[in-house]
Amino acid sequence: MTSTSPTWLVRIQAIESSKLFQTSVISIIILSALTIGARTYELPGGADRLMGYLDAAVTLFFLAEILLRFAAHPHKKRFFADGWNIFDTLVVIGSLMPLENAEGILLGRLLRVFRVLRLVSVVPELRFLINSLLLAIPRMGYIALLMFIIFYIYGTIGSLFFQDINPVLWGDVAIAMLTLFRVATFEDWTDVMYETMSVHPLSWIFYLSFIFLTAFVFLNMMVGTILEVMGSERQRRDAEQNQAAVDQAHQEREEMAAQITAMQQQLAQVHELLQSRVANGGLGK
Amino acid sequence: MTSTSPTWLVRIQAIESSKLFQTSVISIIILSALTIGARTYELPGGADRLMGYLDAAVTLFFLAEILLRFAAHPHKKRFFADGWNIFDTLVVIGSLMPLENAEGILLGRLLRVFRVLRLVSVVPELRFLINSLLLAIPRMGYIALLMFIIFYIYGTIGSLFFQDINPVLWGDVAIAMLTLFRVATFEDWTDVMYETMSVHPLSWIFYLSFIFLTAFVFLNMMVGTILEVMGSERQRRDAEQNQAAVDQAHQEREEMAAQITAMQQQLAQVHELLQSRVANGGLGK
Amino acid sequence: MTSTSPTWLVRIQAIESSKLFQTSVISIIILSALTIGARTYELPGGADRLMGYLDAAVTLFFLAEILLRFAAHPHKKRFFADGWNIFDTLVVIGSLMPLENAEGILLGRLLRVFRVLRLVSVVPELRFLINSLLLAIPRMGYIALLMFIIFYIYGTIGSLFFQDINPVLWGDVAIAMLTLFRVATFEDWTDVMYETMSVHPLSWIFYLSFIFLTAFVFLNMMVGTILEVMGSERQRRDAEQNQAAVDQAHQEREEMAAQITAMQQQLAQVHELLQSRVANGGLGK
Amino acid sequence: MTSTSPTWLVRIQAIESSKLFQTSVISIIILSALTIGARTYELPGGADRLMGYLDAAVTLFFLAEILLRFAAHPHKKRFFADGWNIFDTLVVIGSLMPLENAEGILLGRLLRVFRVLRLVSVVPELRFLINSLLLAIPRMGYIALLMFIIFYIYGTIGSLFFQDINPVLWGDVAIAMLTLFRVATFEDWTDVMYETMSVHPLSWIFYLSFIFLTAFVFLNMMVGTILEVMGSERQRRDAEQNQAAVDQAHQEREEMAAQITAMQQQLAQVHELLQSRVANGGLGK
Repeated sequence: MTSTSPTWLVRIQAIESSKLFQTSVISIIILSALTIGARTYELPGGADRLMGYLDAAVTLFFLAEILLRFAAHPHKKRFFADGWNIFDTLVVIGSLMPLENAEGILLGRLLRVFRVLRLVSVVPELRFLINSLLLAIPRMGYIALLMFIIFYIYGTIGSLFFQDINPVLWGDVAIAMLTLFRVATFEDWTDVMYETMSVHPLSWIFYLSFIFLTAFVFLNMMVGTILEVMGSERQRRDAEQNQAAVDQAHQEREEMAAQITAMQQQLAQVHELLQSRVANGGLGK
Repeated sequence: MTSTSPTWLVRIQAIESSKLFQTSVISIIILSALTIGARTYELPGGADRLMGYLDAAVTLFFLAEILLRFAAHPHKKRFFADGWNIFDTLVVIGSLMPLENAEGILLGRLLRVFRVLRLVSVVPELRFLINSLLLAIPRMGYIALLMFIIFYIYGTIGSLFFQDINPVLWGDVAIAMLTLFRVATFEDWTDVMYETMSVHPLSWIFYLSFIFLTAFVFLNMMVGTILEVMGSERQRRDAEQNQAAVDQAHQEREEMAAQITAMQQQLAQVHELLQSRVANGGLGK
Repeated sequence: MTSTSPTWLVRIQAIESSKLFQTSVISIIILSALTIGARTYELPGGADRLMGYLDAAVTLFFLAEILLRFAAHPHKKRFFADGWNIFDTLVVIGSLMPLENAEGILLGRLLRVFRVLRLVSVVPELRFLINSLLLAIPRMGYIALLMFIIFYIYGTIGSLFFQDINPVLWGDVAIAMLTLFRVATFEDWTDVMYETMSVHPLSWIFYLSFIFLTAFVFLNMMVGTILEVMGSERQRRDAEQNQAAVDQAHQEREEMAAQITAMQQQLAQVHELLQSRVANGGLGK
Repeated sequence: MTSTSPTWLVRIQAIESSKLFQTSVISIIILSALTIGARTYELPGGADRLMGYLDAAVTLFFLAEILLRFAAHPHKKRFFADGWNIFDTLVVIGSLMPLENAEGILLGRLLRVFRVLRLVSVVPELRFLINSLLLAIPRMGYIALLMFIIFYIYGTIGSLFFQDINPVLWGDVAIAMLTLFRVATFEDWTDVMYETMSVHPLSWIFYLSFIFLTAFVFLNMMVGTILEVMGSERQRRDAEQNQAAVDQAHQEREEMAAQITAMQQQLAQVHELLQSRVANGGLGK
C-alpha cells in the first residue's frame, strides 16, 4: 500500500474526493445506523440474518474506506495527527474484533453504535460544529471545578447529617452528590427536602442555599459560553464594518492630502518664481 | 373572474385594502376561533345548531375573501408565489371538503382549528414575527442534526442495555429516544435512573453524560439563536449610529476640502498674476 | 387644604422631602408588612388585638402621608397624572373601606397585603426597576399573542381528541390550555402523554411539537427582552465612548481648519499685495 | 514570631512562594477533602483511626502554614485586611476547637468540610472567579428585594386563602413562601394548584400570575448579570480595537497637519519676500 506509484496515488485521491464517494460513505453510515437501530426491535429470523450480512458488509466497506483514505493521504506519518482519523480507525478496529460470547456480543453492538458518530467525522459542517463546541470547554474548566467543590461540600454535609434519615439518598458522599444533582435539576426535590425537614426542621436552608449557589454559578457558566462564542463573532463583524468606515475616511483624507500636496507644489512654484524675480529684479535693476 | 375590467379591479383593490375590510376579516377569524373553542364545551342543542350556521357563514366569508384577494391581485400567476396565500387557500379548501362520517367530522373540526392561524397571515406584525422566527431555523439545522445523533446513539445504547429492565421505557430505539427526551426535560428522570441502577449500578454515567451533553449542545443552540437575532439588530443600529458620526466627519472634511479648493484657486490666481507680471515685467522692462 | 399659604406649602414640602420622613414611611410600610405576615400565624388574643390597633394606626398614618404629599404637590391637578400616586391613593382607600362580615374581613386583609407594594412606590431604585421592567413589555406583546394562538390551537385539538380519555385534563379548551401550560413547564408531562398515547399511540407528536414550538417561541421572547435591555444600555455606553473619540477628531479637525483659514487669510494678503503691486507697478511705471 | 530578623523573613517568604510549597498545600487540601468524604462511608476500625491521625496531621499542617504565611507577610497589621486570610484563619481555628461530645463531633466534621473551600483561597484562578462572581451580586440586590416582595405578597395571600385547605403547604407566611419557591421551580406545582382549585376554582390565576411574574423578574435578573459581565469585557475589547483605528486616523491627521504647517511656513516666506520686494521696490524705485 505504501508503494503506490504517483499515478495510483492521484487516482485514489480523485476517488476519495469525488462527490459520489463522499455521498456513498454518508449513505453507508446512515444505513449502518439504521441497522443498529433496527436491532433493538424484535425481528424475524430472516431479517436478523440479513442484518448480520449487512453489518459485515458495512464493516468491510469502512475498512476499505479507511485504507483508501490512508493510501490517498500525502504524508502517511501525519495521518494520525488528525483526531478524526484516529477516531475513524478506532471505530473500524472496534468492529473487526471477534466477540463471540454473550458479553462480547453486547460490547460489539455498543462499538457499532459509535459508527453513527462517523457521520460527524464525515460531514464537514458537523465537524466544524464539534470543533467549535470543544473550543468553549477550556473557559468552563475552572467554573466546573468550582461547581464540583460546591457539590462535594454540600454532598459531605448532606451525608453527615441526613445519612440516618435516608441511606438510599444520603448513604455516602457519592450518593449524596447524585441526590444533589437531582435537586439541582428540580426533580422531586421537595420530596427530598420534606423528608429531612421532618428531622431537621431548618434543613430547607441547606437546599435553598444549594439551589441558589448552583443556579448562580450555572448562570455565570452560561454567560461565559455566550461571551466566548459572541466575542469571536463580534470581532469578525466589527472588523469588517469598521474597515469600510475607516477605508472611506482614509480615502477622503488621501484626496485632501493630494490636494494639499498639489497646493504645496504650486506654492513652491510661486516661491521659486518670486525668488527668481527677486534675482531677476535685482539683475534687471 | 379573470375578465374583470380595470374599473372593477380598482374597486376590488380599494375594498380589499380598506381599514373596514381588514378589521372585519380579523373579527371574523376571532369569531371563528371562539366558535371552534366553544365546541369543546357541552352545548345545548340550539347553541350547537347556531354554531353550525356560524361555521357555514364563516366558511363562505373566507371563500369570498380569498376570491376577492385573488381578483384584486395584479399578477394572477404570482398569487401563489406567496406562502401565506397558499396557506389561506388550503385552509378554505379544507373547510369546504364534505366530511359526513364520524371520523370526517373530527378531521373537519381539526381543519377548522387551523383557521386561527389565519390570524397570523392577516396581522402584519405576526406575519413579520413568524418570518423572522423562520429565519432563525437554518442556523440551528446542523445543531438539531447533532442533537438527533446524540439522541440516536444514547437511544440505541439504552435500548440494548435496559430493554429487559423496563420494555415500556426502553423497548426499542424509538421508545428509548422518547424516554431520553423525558430525561432531557428532567421529568421524573431519577425514577428512570434508579430503576436501571438497580441492575446496572454504573448506569448513572449514562444519564449524567447524556444530560451534560444535551444541556451543553442546547446551550450552544440558544447562543446561536441569540447571535442570529442580535447580529442583524446590531448591524442595523450600528449602521444608523455610525452613519451620523461618519456623516458629521464627512461634512467637516467636505468643508475643509472646499476651503482648500478655494485656496488652490486663489493660489492659482496668485501664480497667474505673478507669471503675467513676469511676462509684463519682462515686457514692461 | 387647597388654600394653603405659600409658607405652609414650603414647610410641608420640607417635611415631605426630609430624610427622617422618608425613612419613617419606609419603616411603617415594613412594620405594616410584618403585621400582615404575622396574622397568618396562630396568635394569642392579646397579640391579635394589638395587631388591630397597629393596623388602624398604619391606616391613619398612610392617610396622613398621602394627604401631606397631596398638599405638598405644587400642581394639585397633576398629582394623579403619576401612576404611583394613584396606586398609593387606592391602597389607602382600600384600607379605609368598612368591611364587617366574614368575606369582607378576608377582602380587607387582601387589600392590606398590597400595602407591601407601597415599598416599591417609595424606594426610588425599586420604582426605577419596575418602570424599566414595564418598558420591556410592549416588545413582548405580539410574541405573547403568538404564544396564546399556539396554546389556543393545541388546546382545541387536545380537547377535541383527548376529551373522552381524561375530562379532568382535557374537558374543554380552557382546561386543556391549563394542562398545556403544565406540559410547557415539564410538570409530570409524561404522565399526561402516556395516558393519551394508550388510546392514540401517535399523540407524542402532539406533545413534542408543542414543546418544541413553545420552547422556540419562548427562546425568542427571551432574546427579545435581552435585546431590549441591552440595546439602551449599549447605546448609552457607545454614545459616551464614541463621543470622546469624535470630540478628539473634531478638535483636531478644528485646529487644522483654523490653520487653513489662517493660511487663506495670509494668501489673501499675498494676493492683495500682488494686485496692489500690479496696480502700483502699472502706476509706478 | 514577630521578632523575625530580615534574613529569617526572606527565607520564609522564599519557602512560602516556592512552587513546591504551593503544590504541597493544594495536595494536603485535596487529601483533607478526600478524608472528609471517606468518613461518610462505613470504614473498618483501622481505617477510621488512620483518618483520625491524618486529620490531626492536616490540622497541624494548616496551623503551620497559616503561621508561616503570617510570618512571611511584610505588614502584620494588614494581614487580616484580606478576606481570604480571615477565612483561612477561621478554618484553622475551627479545626483546633476541642469538641468531645456527640454534637461537637458533628460540628467538628462540619467545620472540617469547609477546609475544601481553602482550595478556592489557594488556587488563584478560583479566587479570581469567586471575586468576579461577588462583583455581580450588588447589581442583583434590588432585583432580589423585588423578588422577595413578590414572594411575600403571594405568600401572605396564599396563607390567608389556602391555610385551611392544606396547612402543611400554606400554614403560615414562611411555609407558604417555601411552597411558592417550589412552585417557581415547577416542582409538582400542579398538585399544589389542583388541591386549591378544588375549593377556589379560580386559584389558577394566583399560580399563573405568580409564575409569570417570577419568570419575568428572573429573566431580567439574568439579563442583568449578562450585562454586568459583558459590559466590562466589551469595554476592554472595544477600547483596544478603537485605539488602533483612532491611532491611525490621528497619525494621518498629524501628517496632514505637518504638511499644512510646512505650507504655512512657505507661504509666510512668500509673504515676507513680497513685502520685502514692496519695500525694496519702493526703495529701488
